[in-house]
Amino acid sequence: MSDVRVAGVGVTSFGNMPEKTGRELFATASIEAFEDSGVPREDVDALLYGNFMGELSEHQGHQGPLMAEAAGVQAPATRYESACASSGTAVRDAVLRLRNGEDDVILVGGAERMTNLGTAGATEALAIAADDLWEVRAGTTFPGAYALMAQAYFDEYGGEHEDLAHIAVKNHENALPNDKAQYQRAIDVEDVLEAPQVSSPLGLYDACPLSDGAAALVLTSESYAEEHDLESAVSITGTGQGGDRMALHDREYLARSPAARDAGEEAYADSGIGPADVDFAEVHDCFTIAEVLAIESLDLFQIGEGISAARDGRTTADGETPINLSGGLKAKGHPVGATGASQIAEVTKLLSGKHPNSELVEDATTALAHNAGGTVASATVHVLEVSDA
Amino acid sequence: MSDVRVAGVGVTSFGNMPEKTGRELFATASIEAFEDSGVPREDVDALLYGNFMGELSEHQGHQGPLMAEAAGVQAPATRYESACASSGTAVRDAVLRLRNGEDDVILVGGAERMTNLGTAGATEALAIAADDLWEVRAGTTFPGAYALMAQAYFDEYGGEHEDLAHIAVKNHENALPNDKAQYQRAIDVEDVLEAPQVSSPLGLYDACPLSDGAAALVLTSESYAEEHDLESAVSITGTGQGGDRMALHDREYLARSPAARDAGEEAYADSGIGPADVDFAEVHDCFTIAEVLAIESLDLFQIGEGISAARDGRTTADGETPINLSGGLKAKGHPVGATGASQIAEVTKLLSGKHPNSELVEDATTALAHNAGGTVASATVHVLEVSDA
Repeated sequence: MSDVRVAGVGVTSFGNMPEKTGRELFATASIEAFEDSGVPREDVDALLYGNFMGELSEHQGHQGPLMAEAAGVQAPATRYESACASSGTAVRDAVLRLRNGEDDVILVGGAERMTNLGTAGATEALAIAADDLWEVRAGTTFPGAYALMAQAYFDEYGGEHEDLAHIAVKNHENALPNDKAQYQRAIDVEDVLEAPQVSSPLGLYDACPLSDGAAALVLTSESYAEEHDLESAVSITGTGQGGDRMALHDREYLARSPAARDAGEEAYADSGIGPADVDFAEVHDCFTIAEVLAIESLDLFQIGEGISAARDGRTTADGETPINLSGGLKAKGHPVGATGASQIAEVTKLLSGKHPNSELVEDATTALAHNAGGTVASATVHVLEVSDA
Repeated sequence: MSDVRVAGVGVTSFGNMPEKTGRELFATASIEAFEDSGVPREDVDALLYGNFMGELSEHQGHQGPLMAEAAGVQAPATRYESACASSGTAVRDAVLRLRNGEDDVILVGGAERMTNLGTAGATEALAIAADDLWEVRAGTTFPGAYALMAQAYFDEYGGEHEDLAHIAVKNHENALPNDKAQYQRAIDVEDVLEAPQVSSPLGLYDACPLSDGAAALVLTSESYAEEHDLESAVSITGTGQGGDRMALHDREYLARSPAARDAGEEAYADSGIGPADVDFAEVHDCFTIAEVLAIESLDLFQIGEGISAARDGRTTADGETPINLSGGLKAKGHPVGATGASQIAEVTKLLSGKHPNSELVEDATTALAHNAGGTVASATVHVLEVSDA
């Protein structure tokens, strides 16, 4: 079994672009990815594409063939939908196909158009990632669900809103040099604590924004990369996926994420590394508390220690394991279907010296990307390593 | 590379069940599939699940984990959406994973709830499988799109509505003994010709119905089947997928389906068989003209000959290549996300002597299942063979 090479990556700016269609966003990301890769479009064997709410925001399903056309490729195309982990699951299937020799080149990516729905419309559309019969109809929205998870965490392991605030501050700080981030703006702990409360204990600055955007990756088999002398400095060496009950009330724990734990364990075993080998990680911080649950589930921090990791400088850019050097969903933005693929793009740039924050991790060889759907009823984890490491 | 075994299949009745939720439908199909298979639920490595319009009909995305729960399995779950080929693409990825040893047991299937939307609502929801900007906003619906394809076919190769009528008559005839079919009712050519016109030349009996329903398949690797002495009489020996431009006006031909041709060629090559080896096939007859395009694209009939195949008795139950012995989408029904998986279920039962129509093909060893999305912008083809053939 061979590793999978990241030949090229492309990401649009993330932000408030209600006038741009999904296909326009994905075309933009794919042009950048193909240019970065040096791979001709006619070599693409398949498009695996993640999108979450196109039916509601664009009255558009069946986006696979539409996005193949937007990207200028003539290849079978499939849309993957796992809520906010949609393109994470697409990346996973691409990895499985490429390393088994089913395909040589796969275009993977995702896009989401959200802001045209407005804040209320997008919040309503996001709610379809929860259980409609037993959560949504009872009034559950995602800020409310993650607030319950935060309350449960505080009850079980301690912590307070100020701990979470340090996560938001860190991720905004990391996004400052990232020109494609939605927010290139420093905030401080006071800003977070004084922001309007959304759902106790979470306030406005504990949540990622609504975002439009797209990401695309040109992935190849190792043999294709070698035959074509591609400069593919980064490989995907491990993949994992986990699942959990859909609704929070059906879970054993509110303050842990077994789906992320399972995905991480599978990805570690698959790549032959362990948590101690991870130099940095991009994790799914749709809310500040989600970053805590992620870094604990991935065994990067002990259970109960994740809450203070940012405050103690353990996950900051100069800490032992920097988390979300891109700015994370919190500051980089979260165009849902694009997020999983964009995390792979950010890690690839960080590991290959092409990211504005690369100098912060210049000796790094190994990193994780963790993408989650809903209240982590779905999770994918990928291990990326410098190819010649 | 080993073949993939069909260990068990389950299909709900298809029909008008607006009170049933998608999860209830899929639970029912999966119970039958597990009972048929003898495989314990705890051996399932993944659920790959097809659904098309859940966002619109049930305000429910992220159906993967929800359906894993409905089926009683604790495994990572991913939803595939390729319009009417949604579960066809799920089956394809399951085949790729199982034969490469990534997984041993995969639950594959799909479900769709449609009739609760009413006829106008469901027609509107189905339209999201076309290009919203350039087709749907210009008034295109699927009956209209397939009517254009029929007109183009008549112009290019000849034929008339009466030819198409024989396809509807045949498929209703085939459905008569199929207790799970939506219509167990014989019709004659006059019925079709005298039915209300929907979009010239297609009338009411040229179209498949709106349907609720689900299908589930327990697929295993060859080695798992042998280790566990499973009675898995049928194998999936070939898989193919094709893609085309999304909108009809971007296609070179209206009267051919290159995506189906590409999927067929890939599946034939993959399995090592050719069209002459196919004893019978289930094809995607969402409209009568679609059956014509399918059997020609799959090279079962020459281009221009598909139109008269039913009329000439070449595709009837006693013909040279029986098509849609289940009743097809036309009479069995078409709960969109379930259709691709249900075709695999029907072929499996036909090949293993467990279908009410099995006696019509008792010497058969090899069959095709062809699933299409939109106006065949997506297509999957699978080859099934008797395991010990």
